[in-house]
Amino acid sequence: MDQRKGLTDEARQDIDATRADRFETRRATVPALEEVLFEAFPVLDHGFIRVIDYMGDDGAVVQAARVSYGRGTKKVSEDRGLIRYLMRHWHSTPFEMCEIKLHVKLPIFVARQWIRHRTSSVNEYSARYSVLDEEFYIPAPAQLAAQSSSNRQGRSELLEGSEAAQVLDLLRDDASRNYRDYLWMLNENDADPERSGLARELARMNLTLNMYTQWYWKTNLHNLFNFMRLRADAHAQYEIRVYADVLLGLTERWVPLSHEAFMEYRMGALTLSRTAVEIVKRLLAGERVTQETSGLPPREWREFAAGLGLS
Amino acid sequence: MDQRKGLTDEARQDIDATRADRFETRRATVPALEEVLFEAFPVLDHGFIRVIDYMGDDGAVVQAARVSYGRGTKKVSEDRGLIRYLMRHWHSTPFEMCEIKLHVKLPIFVARQWIRHRTSSVNEYSARYSVLDEEFYIPAPAQLAAQSSSNRQGRSELLEGSEAAQVLDLLRDDASRNYRDYLWMLNENDADPERSGLARELARMNLTLNMYTQWYWKTNLHNLFNFMRLRADAHAQYEIRVYADVLLGLTERWVPLSHEAFMEYRMGALTLSRTAVEIVKRLLAGERVTQETSGLPPREWREFAAGLGLS
Amino acid sequence: MDQRKGLTDEARQDIDATRADRFETRRATVPALEEVLFEAFPVLDHGFIRVIDYMGDDGAVVQAARVSYGRGTKKVSEDRGLIRYLMRHWHSTPFEMCEIKLHVKLPIFVARQWIRHRTSSVNEYSARYSVLDEEFYIPAPAQLAAQSSSNRQGRSELLEGSEAAQVLDLLRDDASRNYRDYLWMLNENDADPERSGLARELARMNLTLNMYTQWYWKTNLHNLFNFMRLRADAHAQYEIRVYADVLLGLTERWVPLSHEAFMEYRMGALTLSRTAVEIVKRLLAGERVTQETSGLPPREWREFAAGLGLS
Amino acid sequence: MDQRKGLTDEARQDIDATRADRFETRRATVPALEEVLFEAFPVLDHGFIRVIDYMGDDGAVVQAARVSYGRGTKKVSEDRGLIRYLMRHWHSTPFEMCEIKLHVKLPIFVARQWIRHRTSSVNEYSARYSVLDEEFYIPAPAQLAAQSSSNRQGRSELLEGSEAAQVLDLLRDDASRNYRDYLWMLNENDADPERSGLARELARMNLTLNMYTQWYWKTNLHNLFNFMRLRADAHAQYEIRVYADVLLGLTERWVPLSHEAFMEYRMGALTLSRTAVEIVKRLLAGERVTQETSGLPPREWREFAAGLGLS
Repeated sequence: MDQRKGLTDEARQDIDATRADRFETRRATVPALEEVLFEAFPVLDHGFIRVIDYMGDDGAVVQAARVSYGRGTKKVSEDRGLIRYLMRHWHSTPFEMCEIKLHVKLPIFVARQWIRHRTSSVNEYSARYSVLDEEFYIPAPAQLAAQSSSNRQGRSELLEGSEAAQVLDLLRDDASRNYRDYLWMLNENDADPERSGLARELARMNLTLNMYTQWYWKTNLHNLFNFMRLRADAHAQYEIRVYADVLLGLTERWVPLSHEAFMEYRMGALTLSRTAVEIVKRLLAGERVTQETSGLPPREWREFAAGLGLS
Repeated sequence: MDQRKGLTDEARQDIDATRADRFETRRATVPALEEVLFEAFPVLDHGFIRVIDYMGDDGAVVQAARVSYGRGTKKVSEDRGLIRYLMRHWHSTPFEMCEIKLHVKLPIFVARQWIRHRTSSVNEYSARYSVLDEEFYIPAPAQLAAQSSSNRQGRSELLEGSEAAQVLDLLRDDASRNYRDYLWMLNENDADPERSGLARELARMNLTLNMYTQWYWKTNLHNLFNFMRLRADAHAQYEIRVYADVLLGLTERWVPLSHEAFMEYRMGALTLSRTAVEIVKRLLAGERVTQETSGLPPREWREFAAGLGLS
Repeated sequence: MDQRKGLTDEARQDIDATRADRFETRRATVPALEEVLFEAFPVLDHGFIRVIDYMGDDGAVVQAARVSYGRGTKKVSEDRGLIRYLMRHWHSTPFEMCEIKLHVKLPIFVARQWIRHRTSSVNEYSARYSVLDEEFYIPAPAQLAAQSSSNRQGRSELLEGSEAAQVLDLLRDDASRNYRDYLWMLNENDADPERSGLARELARMNLTLNMYTQWYWKTNLHNLFNFMRLRADAHAQYEIRVYADVLLGLTERWVPLSHEAFMEYRMGALTLSRTAVEIVKRLLAGERVTQETSGLPPREWREFAAGLGLS
Repeated sequence: MDQRKGLTDEARQDIDATRADRFETRRATVPALEEVLFEAFPVLDHGFIRVIDYMGDDGAVVQAARVSYGRGTKKVSEDRGLIRYLMRHWHSTPFEMCEIKLHVKLPIFVARQWIRHRTSSVNEYSARYSVLDEEFYIPAPAQLAAQSSSNRQGRSELLEGSEAAQVLDLLRDDASRNYRDYLWMLNENDADPERSGLARELARMNLTLNMYTQWYWKTNLHNLFNFMRLRADAHAQYEIRVYADVLLGLTERWVPLSHEAFMEYRMGALTLSRTAVEIVKRLLAGERVTQETSGLPPREWREFAAGLGLS
């Protein structure tokens, strides 16, 4: 696997040098996560996620729930049971005791969705201060979908033939031209000695929303779960979902018991409304229930039936 | 004053209709703020700030500080003294008891700075769901400044002559073309019946960062003060500072005593470092102090001298 | 209904005076909530909840979801559908646009649970600064329950006969004596001119956790829903649950459509784990499933069966 | 130094066992903090602070500010300059990249102040679930002060002679008796087989506010600075200030450069109001300024004069 897309040679060297160091610590460590620490997991065409630091492991969840003096873990089976109990009963504070810090490279329009998760810390690469590199997101043809008519926020079937080609050309040409004009306006290093060059904080406004930015992002495990539940969901936009999917994998490496509980009680769970609970009870009592007799509006009935595999 | 820039006819009618209503309430009200409720205060070329709702007044700050049963206010002079005391001694929680909700229209690159203030609630107009209007920010010539060499995040002298004209042309042409291509890709209303039209959530990535977006933004007075302290500051980018300046004016209408205390102890205040305190003591004792003898590095010395008007 | 328990005469007069005022406003108002504004809803033996201020109504949720210029509401049926959609799909940000401010009087051990809801603003009556009144919570005999053996955080059957009487005597005597000693240590108004009197911030440590305190507490509707979901739940301690129940009633007055959606999709909802979803599918397909064949541990199976009314 | 007060034998063994472990990590480590990891730093008569985990070091602040690929550090002198710049100009987000987790044992009345710092994660030992130990705070005679008349939240001169002795006796007797009655009501292990025993969640209300509780508390460096600025301040209550003082020492071990900048620009700094700035300018210009001609009210003038060492 080439995990080196979207990285300059200098960046690769910095990463390799950082990965080569080893230190001694008394803190809880997670070998499976240490293994990939600082590595860039590629996302989209130029993006990545890198784990820069972490605090705590499954034992830290247990330790906080018990407010204990030692590492908190007893037997794995007891820890697993406790973690599942906490997740099931929405005792979320022990999960806040684990923290993770990421370095993420992502298109600006994805960053604008991501930043809406407020309970986190962020430092973004500043285009007031520095010049951005020419990297923008161009969807793979398999992602060029039409507007969905049923889900007004979503996508439908793929674009075909010349329309797809034209769209890709437009995205590429517009982003490139705007970047070129951005550079021209900056006039870095007095490329044209006759001009002053526009301030960076102004010139950047000419860039397109598919430009890549990058940031350090730090959050706790509870908020990471919230992020993944919303962004790894089928209703999330594909371009952020692929980041959330990488995070799911990293979470499994980091806190396997908490991850398992999360998949069981959140990601794979189904919430039945008060009305839907009554329907299930009637169904289990042998009653035949249709949308008309269910008390649910058609759309909710369809969601309900789909969730329980009713035809 | 024409406060109607950046509004469609329909929007103006909605605003006028909303402004015409009057209701009876037992809650604290602020006539000076009621007067401009829902009105659009223009900012930049197409932006605005509208106050949509508010909770509390200066009396609410006093009431919370005293945890009293009635309205909390005694004499204005006592309230004023208490509010100044709270501000001076960083007792910030009573200021959280006032809340304000705004409707803001602003360029996306400004929105990206604004959203970094996390302790607030936001609902943004969704370009996944709706088609954006063609409105983008083009700086006035008086704002087209070169990159500052002393302050690496800021601006310096103005661009002149043909360079300024070329920059404005580029900004305008690139934003217009990208918007046109965005519309083409959307193929709204099957303008071209042969094409499917690209999903909105994808097409929007072709837009430039000077496009206007809009949102509802709600925060409490304490966090509004933090916002204004950072964004009405001379180091903030002009394009967000003009929004902060409008907010300062609205705050003065809303909570005049709290605003006065804020100007006295925050906006107009000067923080002396531990070393700077010692320098002032030496100066006041009649000693002659230069940068060399001050213990401050040159840059801090310049900031210090400028703050106290030393030559 | 006597809503005046736990209030001094002076407090009652302040409340009546405040309730008598009427003001004109352009803001959204909710007559059903105005009706009870400032009134004290009694809770426990000396506690209460008073609504002091509010911002927004069901229309504000709709308005934020649509980012509209006017009041946001269309037909009630459309608003209702949109609010239910938002709740069902965890679009929580529009609910943050409503804000409520309460004056609450509550025992300190309840306050310690309440304060764990961090996303809120609080000003508590300060026992560093003022002398507390002699008011402490004594459970009604119907609440004097034994420790539950099944739920290690909960209660079981009631205490009976002399044990109940002894417990009540102890609670009453210990709280009274400690309060008396607190007053003695304070030596307020130089009651004993020979003594200095202990600082308030120290003397308060002698008080018991059932003493009443009071505070102003302000939060948004989304966080109020979170509070009620956890604290109006059957697993919550009775003494905080009665506060949450009053809040449920107030919320119904304030935002009836949002309250209805909350009851349908949160309070009355049932979350099925990934495994439980499979069991329901099997049951609906006619398969007989027991705990042994369910894949659920015994405890989870019992919760699952109870939730769906299986015998 | 005996750092073992307030610990049971079992707790000491758990701590020793945990301290004996060593792991290998690629993460940034801080040897000076590792040295004292898990150790209990004694505070008051039975309290302590233990560092359980940490994330990041001074280099993490630098790394986030630069959004760099490697460890972020260049020369120590450059890092120091950057960190001082960030602190001076209120660029607080890079400091959020460091996180610390503590185990704290503290009296309940102190915990009630501490918890007001909302941006943190907490898991407290549950008296709904477990029985508390008999440990309560009794002030040392040197802390038994009278109420201050000038600062209405503070302390004044020490109590003397018999009054001090009586106060200490009362505090001790009341806390002991209430604890004994708490145990009696619990009737743990069916001490009296005739009684049911009161539920723990109820019995705990009989305890006094000087009882010790304990919790895991986790926060980031920026919020830790806020905590220390307010709680290590001379106006804070002594009983929380001694905790803040221990935190200052731990912070110096952990992030010496950030700590140094914090002492320079926050703890040791002096904020001059707008009016005070003008007074300093007048003083420096040789003008004689008195309270009467200063524009400051008497109380602010005294604070101003004291801050700058004016007689």
